[in-house]
Amino acid sequence: MAFQYLTNVPLEEARGAYTEALFSEGFQAGTESVPVTASCGRITAAPVYAAICAPHYPASAMDGIALKAGLTFGAGETTPVTLTPEQFIVVDTGDPVPEDCDAVIMIEDVIRQEDGTVKLYAPAAPWQHIRQIGEDICAGEMILPSYTAVTPSAIGAMIAAGVTEVSVLTKPVVGIIPTGDEIVPPTPDPAPGDILEFNSSIFSGMLTEWNAVPRTYPIVKDVKEDIRSAVQTALSECDIVLLNAGSSAGREDYSTEVIGSLGTVLYHGIAIKPGKPAILGLSGRKPVLGVPGYPVSGIIVLEQFLKPLIDCWYHAAEAQPDTCTAVLSKNVVSGLKYREYVRVRMGEVGGKIMASPLGRGSGVVSSFMKADGILEIPQGVEGYEAGSEVTVRLLKKREALSRTLVAIGSHDPLLDEISDLLHSSDPSLHMSSTHVGSMGGIMAVKRGETHIAGVHLLNEADGVYNTAFIRKYFPQGGVRLVECVGRTQGLMLQKGNPKNIQGIYDLTRAGVRYVNRQKGSGTRILIDYLCRKEGVSFGDIYGYDREEFTHTSVAAQIASNTADAGMGIYSAARLYDLDFLPVCMEQYDLLIPDAAWETALVQKLIAILQSAEFRNRLEALGGYELKNPGSVRERF
Amino acid sequence: MAFQYLTNVPLEEARGAYTEALFSEGFQAGTESVPVTASCGRITAAPVYAAICAPHYPASAMDGIALKAGLTFGAGETTPVTLTPEQFIVVDTGDPVPEDCDAVIMIEDVIRQEDGTVKLYAPAAPWQHIRQIGEDICAGEMILPSYTAVTPSAIGAMIAAGVTEVSVLTKPVVGIIPTGDEIVPPTPDPAPGDILEFNSSIFSGMLTEWNAVPRTYPIVKDVKEDIRSAVQTALSECDIVLLNAGSSAGREDYSTEVIGSLGTVLYHGIAIKPGKPAILGLSGRKPVLGVPGYPVSGIIVLEQFLKPLIDCWYHAAEAQPDTCTAVLSKNVVSGLKYREYVRVRMGEVGGKIMASPLGRGSGVVSSFMKADGILEIPQGVEGYEAGSEVTVRLLKKREALSRTLVAIGSHDPLLDEISDLLHSSDPSLHMSSTHVGSMGGIMAVKRGETHIAGVHLLNEADGVYNTAFIRKYFPQGGVRLVECVGRTQGLMLQKGNPKNIQGIYDLTRAGVRYVNRQKGSGTRILIDYLCRKEGVSFGDIYGYDREEFTHTSVAAQIASNTADAGMGIYSAARLYDLDFLPVCMEQYDLLIPDAAWETALVQKLIAILQSAEFRNRLEALGGYELKNPGSVRERF
Repeated sequence: MAFQYLTNVPLEEARGAYTEALFSEGFQAGTESVPVTASCGRITAAPVYAAICAPHYPASAMDGIALKAGLTFGAGETTPVTLTPEQFIVVDTGDPVPEDCDAVIMIEDVIRQEDGTVKLYAPAAPWQHIRQIGEDICAGEMILPSYTAVTPSAIGAMIAAGVTEVSVLTKPVVGIIPTGDEIVPPTPDPAPGDILEFNSSIFSGMLTEWNAVPRTYPIVKDVKEDIRSAVQTALSECDIVLLNAGSSAGREDYSTEVIGSLGTVLYHGIAIKPGKPAILGLSGRKPVLGVPGYPVSGIIVLEQFLKPLIDCWYHAAEAQPDTCTAVLSKNVVSGLKYREYVRVRMGEVGGKIMASPLGRGSGVVSSFMKADGILEIPQGVEGYEAGSEVTVRLLKKREALSRTLVAIGSHDPLLDEISDLLHSSDPSLHMSSTHVGSMGGIMAVKRGETHIAGVHLLNEADGVYNTAFIRKYFPQGGVRLVECVGRTQGLMLQKGNPKNIQGIYDLTRAGVRYVNRQKGSGTRILIDYLCRKEGVSFGDIYGYDREEFTHTSVAAQIASNTADAGMGIYSAARLYDLDFLPVCMEQYDLLIPDAAWETALVQKLIAILQSAEFRNRLEALGGYELKNPGSVRERF
Repeated sequence: MAFQYLTNVPLEEARGAYTEALFSEGFQAGTESVPVTASCGRITAAPVYAAICAPHYPASAMDGIALKAGLTFGAGETTPVTLTPEQFIVVDTGDPVPEDCDAVIMIEDVIRQEDGTVKLYAPAAPWQHIRQIGEDICAGEMILPSYTAVTPSAIGAMIAAGVTEVSVLTKPVVGIIPTGDEIVPPTPDPAPGDILEFNSSIFSGMLTEWNAVPRTYPIVKDVKEDIRSAVQTALSECDIVLLNAGSSAGREDYSTEVIGSLGTVLYHGIAIKPGKPAILGLSGRKPVLGVPGYPVSGIIVLEQFLKPLIDCWYHAAEAQPDTCTAVLSKNVVSGLKYREYVRVRMGEVGGKIMASPLGRGSGVVSSFMKADGILEIPQGVEGYEAGSEVTVRLLKKREALSRTLVAIGSHDPLLDEISDLLHSSDPSLHMSSTHVGSMGGIMAVKRGETHIAGVHLLNEADGVYNTAFIRKYFPQGGVRLVECVGRTQGLMLQKGNPKNIQGIYDLTRAGVRYVNRQKGSGTRILIDYLCRKEGVSFGDIYGYDREEFTHTSVAAQIASNTADAGMGIYSAARLYDLDFLPVCMEQYDLLIPDAAWETALVQKLIAILQSAEFRNRLEALGGYELKNPGSVRERF
């Protein structure tokens, strides 16, 4: 087939042609014989037949005596039969029944006499209490068909049937070659520009879950000959090769060239997002996949192209994913040209399952970790509107969604601590937090998407937090405002305050770089208010339009010297060892709709807010004032 | 707590008290630090916080040029801005953006001039195409809460956040001590009375699936001091000890004594079946479980008592089993005193999920392997009637049930071969066979419980097979009779025919032991007919009331010299290398209800019957005559 450079082939077409090409080249599993005792989870390569019967001898099913049933015929309550010791034999459960016996009598029904004889008051039916040869399994019977996973009980059945070795399919060995001049092994202290190599660890985990054997090779620099020789080595040692990164069209992307020189590039460029620059290649019967460097793209490419190959290898049916119907919390726009995979957080609120799209950047590896599901938007569809019902592929158990406390609203690190306390106190409970600011939280409560929303909204008129906003947005009531904490807001500044910032006005100085929070966040409303109060125009502050979504991400910008100042809470400044110019103590509360109030999840949350452990953790974070956390401040 | 000998304590009560006693003694996981790269599937012992931000430097999100956005303000279609090489820097995706730059322009939008300058026809927005520090993860953010399983993507997130070591819970090491004078290691050639030791292999498989580490000790004879010292050794090396067998009240059952001498026996005897003789003991903070010797009992005891302990160890929520509602195909009677666990085969027939109880003997290890689900009958309930709706705990995926061809009826080894061909040709398809004889098959079709039924019923009036019976039992029609095979029936005899049996009449001779098939089987009807024809009274044949359910199990009795003769098919005799006295060629057909005919499963079956591969396999078995297998003989 001719080589096609960065095309946009529909997923199914590419996958079908690729699998077909590989099969015609002879892509398939090998077989090996392993001891049955070591075969758990392996896939049979051929039917397994019983070598012997189980039981392999007539066995007593009871503790008692074995005898000829005929000797007992006629025995009754008033006509007991007496047997001499030569006429019976004492047997335990599992003991062989002698050839000339055809029945076992339970020890409870045997009256022993002092002279060694026994008395029986009831006749025995022939074959009673004897486990016949082959009762469980007969020699020659098929125990397992071909291409079947060996379970623990199947191991028991095989051993019972005298099978000690079993022919299974070999596990596919998958070579992973990380490439790139900037790529460095895991370290807590990378230099700027260093890209930490974690794709091979993610892929290894996925491969192990898929019953394949990952083999990761050392990182290869962007030198064509080095990459070529690494692929050659991997091809000689593995069944499948993954060449990671170097598959887009950057300055040093040699993947297509290398794969082409060692075999065939069938496709380069698939109509999926993320994952478009994937390369589907082969060398003889061995697949060589060019996997994009961004982790999210890589995960999608492995799921879409490698997993089906491993299924074929094992003659396994394509796994049917668990799906569920969910209501989308935001608009999702997608390009018509691609099938797009959107990671979503999910939660069950008021009996409705909500799906909130997570960060869609291909580099955002945490989006996969946080995701509860994947929303697929087919090629040719522009996206979905907020509120529409969509089908989501679940990454977690459906039931777990019902036991997840959903928090959408303002960010505070204390939410992480609540999450940990919740799960530690009851392992069946989880928490999922999305940071969209206080106003975003209020809107999420209105739309019925969340159990709780962190809010800290200053009413400029009276200087009181939260209540005025809630009254405005919930004129009909139906919500409670639960006290959480007072927290110190202020200007986070670089350590030692090198730019000598003493107040809002200093932010307008040339050379001072500010980093802001997103519109709708309580902190943004606060800085807007402070600017107006001091007569400072937003446009005079460099970076006022540079938006971050959490206190910690603002602190992170300052700590790494891409900004000099930002408004945020004390605990974030302390976490990053920044200077801090306190501005005010604000009230951070939790808004909870009545519909969620009685749920076990919210009641557990209230208990945690009132606990000593919560108080201790917040003291460790610093900058918080705790009065009566967990108490209802007002019911609307 | 006082020791209680062979009590009958309700399951929940025993489990609750046992767990409580262990916790008060300090039963809990240890913690250990492991490299993040080796942590997949492990459980976090504490929250994991990000050590650095990801990205840890401002990174270009595109291939292009980095610059100060301010330089481009005012650029437009007719007013391009020209920049000198000193004013920008070429960057690839992932490259660091220099400190004095605050925007990246995609290479596609950059017009390079020959003199090294570039032209831009649009302004850049500040911070565009820059992945801000911490866009993915901020230093100090909680990546994973305590007691959470590490997933492949979490590994990626941890490495990206500079975490290289993670504190996880240790895996519980579970010592397994097999005991018993009769127990021997797996061998294809056990002596009569030898019991093959496979429980430790079953348990090891289960433990590995539960994320525990099995450690199997050598088999210990029934010598109290030896057992005691084995338990002591295991206690010093493991977190949990399983003492297998010796927990009932037989002659050499030292388990309670040994466990009592090394700690405490909390309960001996739980109100469950199978599994009643379980011993719940502890030595200090370490559980010591006395596990009954029968494999099915052992599996239930591990599921009911060990799995919850491992869940506690890992702070994991109790797994919510998948369940489904099914219609029971037979009456199930249960003792009021126990909670009973009945293994069931399941299948979806005509949109209804049927559950058929499997062999309930505790020794029948194959029942667990074959089971699709477990029906729990609570203590105090006498059982359920055929046709009632019951809730079954699924051992397989619900969808797999819809893709399982259900065969209930007469036994023939060819059904195993069909099963293998079906699954080999399409890995998503399975087959489940239950052997209840031809009449049982007809009744199963009438009740809508099966897709197909093997039948071979001789009509004595005209010597024709099957049609008369089907006409009688299906007066309204609605079924098809599909041709399968002709097969040779005859008397299976010991090799060399030592008892010189030449016909039915010889079965009445003294010293000749017959083994029969169950009533309702086509083979039983055939032998009954032959006896009547020859004027032989059933009562004159020793063993005529000894019933087996398959041709192979009859052959197995003869091969192992517990019987001399039995009626059966040639392929079974050949499998066991027996002599064979042919009696007739009979027609073995498949009865298929119209409702099942159009299903993909049945159509696939028909294709297999017509295949060359099926013909080849039956030729290998021997004794079959194939004319037009898969053709419809008659539609009723």
